[in-house]
Amino acid sequence: MNADNASMQAASDGTRAGEVMYALAERLFPLCRSITGHGVRQTLEILRETVPLTVHEVPSGTPVFDWVVPPEWNLRGATLKDATGATLLDAGNQNLHVVGYSLPAHRTLSRAELAEHVFTLPDQPDLIPYRTSYYNETWGLCLPHRQWESLPDGEYEVRIDADLKPGHLTYGELLLPGQTPEEVLLTTHVCHPSLANDNLSGIAVLARLAQWLAEAPRRYTYRLLFIPGIIGSITWLATHEEVLPRIRHGLVLACVGDAAGPTYKRSRRGNATIDRVVEHVLQHAAPHRRVEDFIPYGYDERQFCSPGINLPVGLFMRSKFGEFPEYHTSADNLAFIRPEHLASSFDWLQRALLVLERDAVYLNTNPKCEPQLGRRGLYHAIGGDADRVRAQMAMLWVLNLSDGHHSILDIAVRAGLPFDAIYVAAERLREHRLLEPA
Amino acid sequence: MNADNASMQAASDGTRAGEVMYALAERLFPLCRSITGHGVRQTLEILRETVPLTVHEVPSGTPVFDWVVPPEWNLRGATLKDATGATLLDAGNQNLHVVGYSLPAHRTLSRAELAEHVFTLPDQPDLIPYRTSYYNETWGLCLPHRQWESLPDGEYEVRIDADLKPGHLTYGELLLPGQTPEEVLLTTHVCHPSLANDNLSGIAVLARLAQWLAEAPRRYTYRLLFIPGIIGSITWLATHEEVLPRIRHGLVLACVGDAAGPTYKRSRRGNATIDRVVEHVLQHAAPHRRVEDFIPYGYDERQFCSPGINLPVGLFMRSKFGEFPEYHTSADNLAFIRPEHLASSFDWLQRALLVLERDAVYLNTNPKCEPQLGRRGLYHAIGGDADRVRAQMAMLWVLNLSDGHHSILDIAVRAGLPFDAIYVAAERLREHRLLEPA
Amino acid sequence: MNADNASMQAASDGTRAGEVMYALAERLFPLCRSITGHGVRQTLEILRETVPLTVHEVPSGTPVFDWVVPPEWNLRGATLKDATGATLLDAGNQNLHVVGYSLPAHRTLSRAELAEHVFTLPDQPDLIPYRTSYYNETWGLCLPHRQWESLPDGEYEVRIDADLKPGHLTYGELLLPGQTPEEVLLTTHVCHPSLANDNLSGIAVLARLAQWLAEAPRRYTYRLLFIPGIIGSITWLATHEEVLPRIRHGLVLACVGDAAGPTYKRSRRGNATIDRVVEHVLQHAAPHRRVEDFIPYGYDERQFCSPGINLPVGLFMRSKFGEFPEYHTSADNLAFIRPEHLASSFDWLQRALLVLERDAVYLNTNPKCEPQLGRRGLYHAIGGDADRVRAQMAMLWVLNLSDGHHSILDIAVRAGLPFDAIYVAAERLREHRLLEPA
Repeated sequence: MNADNASMQAASDGTRAGEVMYALAERLFPLCRSITGHGVRQTLEILRETVPLTVHEVPSGTPVFDWVVPPEWNLRGATLKDATGATLLDAGNQNLHVVGYSLPAHRTLSRAELAEHVFTLPDQPDLIPYRTSYYNETWGLCLPHRQWESLPDGEYEVRIDADLKPGHLTYGELLLPGQTPEEVLLTTHVCHPSLANDNLSGIAVLARLAQWLAEAPRRYTYRLLFIPGIIGSITWLATHEEVLPRIRHGLVLACVGDAAGPTYKRSRRGNATIDRVVEHVLQHAAPHRRVEDFIPYGYDERQFCSPGINLPVGLFMRSKFGEFPEYHTSADNLAFIRPEHLASSFDWLQRALLVLERDAVYLNTNPKCEPQLGRRGLYHAIGGDADRVRAQMAMLWVLNLSDGHHSILDIAVRAGLPFDAIYVAAERLREHRLLEPA
Repeated sequence: MNADNASMQAASDGTRAGEVMYALAERLFPLCRSITGHGVRQTLEILRETVPLTVHEVPSGTPVFDWVVPPEWNLRGATLKDATGATLLDAGNQNLHVVGYSLPAHRTLSRAELAEHVFTLPDQPDLIPYRTSYYNETWGLCLPHRQWESLPDGEYEVRIDADLKPGHLTYGELLLPGQTPEEVLLTTHVCHPSLANDNLSGIAVLARLAQWLAEAPRRYTYRLLFIPGIIGSITWLATHEEVLPRIRHGLVLACVGDAAGPTYKRSRRGNATIDRVVEHVLQHAAPHRRVEDFIPYGYDERQFCSPGINLPVGLFMRSKFGEFPEYHTSADNLAFIRPEHLASSFDWLQRALLVLERDAVYLNTNPKCEPQLGRRGLYHAIGGDADRVRAQMAMLWVLNLSDGHHSILDIAVRAGLPFDAIYVAAERLREHRLLEPA
Repeated sequence: MNADNASMQAASDGTRAGEVMYALAERLFPLCRSITGHGVRQTLEILRETVPLTVHEVPSGTPVFDWVVPPEWNLRGATLKDATGATLLDAGNQNLHVVGYSLPAHRTLSRAELAEHVFTLPDQPDLIPYRTSYYNETWGLCLPHRQWESLPDGEYEVRIDADLKPGHLTYGELLLPGQTPEEVLLTTHVCHPSLANDNLSGIAVLARLAQWLAEAPRRYTYRLLFIPGIIGSITWLATHEEVLPRIRHGLVLACVGDAAGPTYKRSRRGNATIDRVVEHVLQHAAPHRRVEDFIPYGYDERQFCSPGINLPVGLFMRSKFGEFPEYHTSADNLAFIRPEHLASSFDWLQRALLVLERDAVYLNTNPKCEPQLGRRGLYHAIGGDADRVRAQMAMLWVLNLSDGHHSILDIAVRAGLPFDAIYVAAERLREHRLLEPA
């Protein structure tokens, strides 16, 4: 993994990579995902075409910390018809019409009775909401408020053809061994049905990272999880406690395909290396970044950062969950995400992982006064062009702070220069034996 | 002491409590207080009608650290007359006319001789200044500058009928035992004559707090002092050194009846629990708060925060001493303080004491991942009304930070939520055994 | 060294001192200095008329850490003539015309050949640049871009009459013993030819400080160095390693004669006492101060603050090196510096050294409550004129914070008062035995 190569590759591959990620999201969009069931299995099968995931099946009823793996839910179809038999909605066209984990139902009801089971968005009357009821057994339909308002009194026929019965919770895992057993954990949730930013974007970007990491030399071991939200991370944590002490850094990816942000939410620790790395990378590469402190609400970092787990895991997003109007509605569709936004999310994440890989502490081998750079061809008077000045200053910073107490990242932060500039300077100084590993 | 009850009680009692406190200030206003003497005794006797104070008498001449308890001063009357015998001023109408601790005098003097003993406020020509001369034996009169300017040359007769002789320094103390011997110290000064904000306001609010605390269940032991300024706190400290290690938190109350502020001056330690508590309470309840660092000038916190004592004692005010134009003048009268201001001062202080009482460190009994709140009826999807969202977030914060290192106050500060919201969430979680004392 | 005396002396001597320093700069201006050679020797000889410097000669070839003392360079003269024999430039009139460390040369060349050896400033076409080539053997001429542009094609005769051969590196040192062997290091560079701000200003101000320090009582031992830049400090450090543990504080002086600033660049440590002292002094005495963090580029603090040396040495300037348009050009001449600017630089530095001399930790001998200042004649009611209020507050601050953990400087910073006010208060309290050395 060479910084210049990586940058150039990122630049030249940007458009193509974005298109590939977007195409994956398009292909996954129609599947009816939930926290269990065939939609997740089909999603993981498609990912396995390019990413050698291991697929795990955990039986319903398995106790996982304070929880139990729920029954498996599969939806075969659902319709709402009026008294004339005309179909008002059909889940075959739009997964969001059925509340996730709805019980099977075949009933004829009055509009008033139906109203108890209908969810709409009065403030966004043309959008269908996304609703679930995993742990409260019921059934429900979601539709545009305007459509619901237009329905006259009368009889309606609901048919939900679904199974809710013992089965499995399904998730995908990829372990890429590195030079050390210390791990970087990268996760994304795969439980949402036809929503694009939340979270086909996260799936597509993590799949792309998997391909890049698989081909790259790796200092760290990487563990990538494609898991159902909440119950998936709880299940993985409860069944992998022995792995946790090896996890050094981690990121949850979600909502990485829209135009906003990026937004980084720090780990519970607040000053973990991953927090400093992402903040540094975004500071130099993302003018519209937001970096926020941990709060105990969000995606699976809630579990990774629970007090008894407390892993250094942050959350990487573009728009922040809950803050964009398309969130959890039918407007979070394929038009809301763009190839170029997926590509820049990938680029920022790749830069952050490269910092993790390359950060190290060196020792200046000639710590008393400056070494004579001139006779080694390393000195250019400050005052030349901006790039040469920066390269020269980067070298002086590395020499000055390589006292065993500052890593390359520490030096970059202190110097106000991008990590890459400091890293390249350190590599040149190592070539001239002016620097050695601490 | 229940938070909701306390709040409701504070709200419903606000008007009545303010009137009661104001009536007490009205009754105490005419008394001629000083650092010793009958004025203090009469003040404490009136307080004893509603607060079971113990009154202490410390003999003149008692050594107290670097000081000595002074002789007792009592003023029976004072007049200034012109050559015609017309009375120009009479201390019977206005205590401020006589410099505190004036020696007895009966003399006839020229205007020029009298000028040596007269104090006025040229910049506030209609107001009478408040002056004392406790440790420099002299006598003096205070009058409006305009009045003084109008007096023609001629002979004037001064008569100050006063005693300055061995007696006692008098102060009042109330000890309210709690579950623990650890103490909260609350003090106010009782040495100023007819000045309302400085400090009948402090006396009235502390008396009201005494009544409330006497009836409340108490974790802490409370010690309330009604003492003369400076020499009173020095005397108490010098005679109670064995008590000091038990004092965990403390507040001096002064100038708590005017419309401004509140203003909180931190203890010398700067980050004592009382400092964090008052700052937190005011942040959520007092939009116009000012919080300032300790300086070695002010009221009795100067003594409580001297380097060899260094107690965690802050100063609670509305206007800051010395900064309001009425300060130490006849304009600091009963019109300058209002029942509603006394009531809100009481309310803020009550809230702060409730935080002290209720703050505690708990342990999440289910620290690995979140507990399943839904099956306990504790989960409401974020997105409901603002109060429910806040209650839900408060619960998640408590669970996330109850790792033995964060108290309820720490969690409230970190979450940016009022203490009460976090406290109520913690109580609910305790009911469901998701939280236990650390 | 009494604060008031020092201030008054500074004020009254200001004009005269400025003139004396300026006159020294005028006298030194024509000399052709470089990092070695007679120009430095002549400079030090002139300084020895008023400052008892020891002059050290270090042989060429001496290894000094990663460097070697270079050959000695002396320029006897240099001219550029056109084909008619007309003299176009003469180093006898302007030292800057010859690139420092130019090899001897006597050649006739075409304009194109000459261009390889000519340095100009296209953006400042009337100024001559200052250039050197210490470690890359070549020769060169510097001239105004406008002049160079006006020269027609044709033959030109260059004559550089110079020696570059084994000799010595010369520097001046003054050691002023104090009550303790702990040292304050003050250095300035003497290697620049006819440039006034950079650095005849530094030489003149340091010479003046030498005279003042020589006459003053000294707690610290002072070591003053007049050294060639970079190689001079490296040479001194390499040959004085046993001295380094005794150096407690240090300052490099450069560019201290122009109208801007002052600018202080912190030591590598960032919070060394010298950093706090200079920042405090400038905060109260220099409204246009700039205080900047350490960067590994600048003057000799680069060497003093290299990681294996890491002395608490800051850099004191007016304009910052490299940021003023006159920097390293013929416009940095005697008109660019002024007596009054040299005088105020001297004044700020003198104040900083007085703080170093006077800072100490005291103990309040009466730490429980305030001592009774009144009976010692030390109490004046707050509310008098501003000076008396400040003096009273200073005394209260000293008493409150003299607990063995706060020095006079710490107290001044905490109180927001100038060091002198706190120092004077401490002296008064010591007279009354209310304070004793910790």
